[in-house]
Amino acid sequence: MLESLREQVSSACLLMRDYGLASFAWGNISAIDRANSLIVIKPKGTPCYQASPERMIITDLSGNIVEGDGLPSPDLPAHIELYKSFPKADAIVHTHSPNATVWAQAGRDIPPYGVTHAEYFKGCIPCTLSLSSSEIEDNYEQKAGLSVVEAFEKRGLDPETIPGALIFNHGPIAWGRDALEALKNAAILETVAKLAYQTEQINPEIMPIGNAILDQRFFKHHK
Amino acid sequence: MLESLREQVSSACLLMRDYGLASFAWGNISAIDRANSLIVIKPKGTPCYQASPERMIITDLSGNIVEGDGLPSPDLPAHIELYKSFPKADAIVHTHSPNATVWAQAGRDIPPYGVTHAEYFKGCIPCTLSLSSSEIEDNYEQKAGLSVVEAFEKRGLDPETIPGALIFNHGPIAWGRDALEALKNAAILETVAKLAYQTEQINPEIMPIGNAILDQRFFKHHK
Amino acid sequence: MLESLREQVSSACLLMRDYGLASFAWGNISAIDRANSLIVIKPKGTPCYQASPERMIITDLSGNIVEGDGLPSPDLPAHIELYKSFPKADAIVHTHSPNATVWAQAGRDIPPYGVTHAEYFKGCIPCTLSLSSSEIEDNYEQKAGLSVVEAFEKRGLDPETIPGALIFNHGPIAWGRDALEALKNAAILETVAKLAYQTEQINPEIMPIGNAILDQRFFKHHK
Amino acid sequence: MLESLREQVSSACLLMRDYGLASFAWGNISAIDRANSLIVIKPKGTPCYQASPERMIITDLSGNIVEGDGLPSPDLPAHIELYKSFPKADAIVHTHSPNATVWAQAGRDIPPYGVTHAEYFKGCIPCTLSLSSSEIEDNYEQKAGLSVVEAFEKRGLDPETIPGALIFNHGPIAWGRDALEALKNAAILETVAKLAYQTEQINPEIMPIGNAILDQRFFKHHK
Repeated sequence: MLESLREQVSSACLLMRDYGLASFAWGNISAIDRANSLIVIKPKGTPCYQASPERMIITDLSGNIVEGDGLPSPDLPAHIELYKSFPKADAIVHTHSPNATVWAQAGRDIPPYGVTHAEYFKGCIPCTLSLSSSEIEDNYEQKAGLSVVEAFEKRGLDPETIPGALIFNHGPIAWGRDALEALKNAAILETVAKLAYQTEQINPEIMPIGNAILDQRFFKHHK
Repeated sequence: MLESLREQVSSACLLMRDYGLASFAWGNISAIDRANSLIVIKPKGTPCYQASPERMIITDLSGNIVEGDGLPSPDLPAHIELYKSFPKADAIVHTHSPNATVWAQAGRDIPPYGVTHAEYFKGCIPCTLSLSSSEIEDNYEQKAGLSVVEAFEKRGLDPETIPGALIFNHGPIAWGRDALEALKNAAILETVAKLAYQTEQINPEIMPIGNAILDQRFFKHHK
Repeated sequence: MLESLREQVSSACLLMRDYGLASFAWGNISAIDRANSLIVIKPKGTPCYQASPERMIITDLSGNIVEGDGLPSPDLPAHIELYKSFPKADAIVHTHSPNATVWAQAGRDIPPYGVTHAEYFKGCIPCTLSLSSSEIEDNYEQKAGLSVVEAFEKRGLDPETIPGALIFNHGPIAWGRDALEALKNAAILETVAKLAYQTEQINPEIMPIGNAILDQRFFKHHK
Repeated sequence: MLESLREQVSSACLLMRDYGLASFAWGNISAIDRANSLIVIKPKGTPCYQASPERMIITDLSGNIVEGDGLPSPDLPAHIELYKSFPKADAIVHTHSPNATVWAQAGRDIPPYGVTHAEYFKGCIPCTLSLSSSEIEDNYEQKAGLSVVEAFEKRGLDPETIPGALIFNHGPIAWGRDALEALKNAAILETVAKLAYQTEQINPEIMPIGNAILDQRFFKHHK
């Protein structure tokens, strides 16, 4: 299992560029072996395009390193919070992809404006609330992860039908059943972020699509 | 005829990328053999860049499969409605090209703002009206096709001089005398969508061009 | 001289793509042999990227073909008007480059907002006025050329220090002492069109730069 | 030391394109040998992509040429002012990169809207004030450099934690401990300029991020 996850996370890292999601060394990917509660994550300081199976860091759910040279991505505490609260999220992708990042910086949910969105996200992609100074100063990454979990819990959203979120002042995070699905969700999130931005520019009065079309598209695509 | 259509649709599918119209696996192309009332369409689940003549699905005008392994593109019912109502549309291209999609999501016609538009579309490119929940739940794709036909009939538009439309909440659809012409019309639609968007940003008071220049350009280009 | 102009126009045509100015088959380039009053122009229907010295069409200043198979670009009458009124314009480039085209569609001059603009255009890049229906119906291309000349004459602009203009509802046209300079001016026009658009988005109250910096930059660059 | 700086500046020039910062021949890079008060700078008229160690011009802090054929970049007087006032800035990069240039043209500071900005710039990236006509006419480049220094001094900004600025009506300038760091800061400046622009479009009411997150990110990244 771990060997397969090393390959999977490493392959997804290398695909970041092809999906247009990699800028500088920003972004990281992890996956979890639920049976053994072990996380495979990109090492700190290694850009995604230099990932390889051997370089991956293995940690437990407390963030302790079990295998690997070097440190895990500093965003590990955010990933851990998501793995603990979203039992079907078996892989996580965080990027600074530009169109999703501007919604995160703007502090707004991305409304569903069309079937392109609805096929992958059955409703708004939520943006987290602002963190307090003390939350920022005391393990920011963990608090950022908790703020994603809180956005889903407080609003009654389902992380299985909305496989991504925006961390306020920061950028997007997406998940899936494996690293490639999480990566694809991150890529779709980037795509619909751009579409939603321009949709509002063309028609500032536009309303999100209704539940009928959200349901029709989402379930058609996922049945 | 069918062999030639298989080649034509397959070639047009492979050109989607070169025209910048392909994102992920979205988009499909078909053509019709009017003499035999048979449709050649891209199979479901095959991205356009993997199209080949042998993989094409042949159906009749009721959507029954006549030849081919697998299923036709799920958008077939929309194509069928257009073939039935637009007798000169012998090929259809549907994409999620980003600039046209945002107008479709915004629910607005694309006004003609210059000769680039006028050479290919002699007037507004219409956006369909919203569908009701029952229309969405009961064969959405067919209803989407009917909404395009209705837009042309109710407004007295001519599908020969305006070879494309926007499906509200969804994206663009274009047609032509063959698959390559339909593809080019889809590419021009994408181009003029971007131009129109920025034109309005630069001058929110701008009016569409008048009939004199629409006529001069369209007929010059088509004579 | 004519042989050299054939080479020059043909080379500039082939560079259209590298400069990001070519979309579909739109755009044309010509140059004039002032001593013999002969124009070398891209043939009609040949995309710029297929230009070659032998394919060029030679005409006189009345538009009569002197050499070449096929027809000259249909925009020839506009080029002729500029050659007749702008004695230092020895080559002309017309494109549908997207950022300049949106200003032309918006019917607005491009204001000078920075030194990038000032190094090449010593002031606003003017947009022509609307043509009447009868002007459009009776040799539109010639009237479009005349409208550029009129914009310079009525406003007292100097085509040597402002080597380009926007044809309302249409797109940009630029000129220079030879085809490569005209092409470069068309490329700069496209660049500053994009910069000006976004400058206004970021600060709707921004004023054009003053004469001091316009003069400093333009003369520094041209001395 | 000088040989190493020649290599460093030349390598950074060649990387301008890879970072998407080079348009036409705009832009220049220099570095300083503090021990000997000598500046290595790109020659005038040579585009960055043609830089080589041997072509570099060496000058003293008064701008006198010490070594090299040809003239130094005409922006040298601006670089000199920064080297004199910012003791830790050992290399300088000036570009006309489009997204940073539009903020400079708009005359606005770039506010920090997210962690992408905060990792490299611990606060607003300042835009200089307008120059008077006499300042423009009498050694514009030097006055532009002084206006950057003044922006930092009057506002109490630290050029070590904010390694870049916008020259009003002109474009961005960035610095660092060596040419590659200065180049990277110029690239980040371009990136955050685009993010900030779109952030404001999506949410015109958005406020800059607070000091807690600015500090957390900047010091995390620089410790």
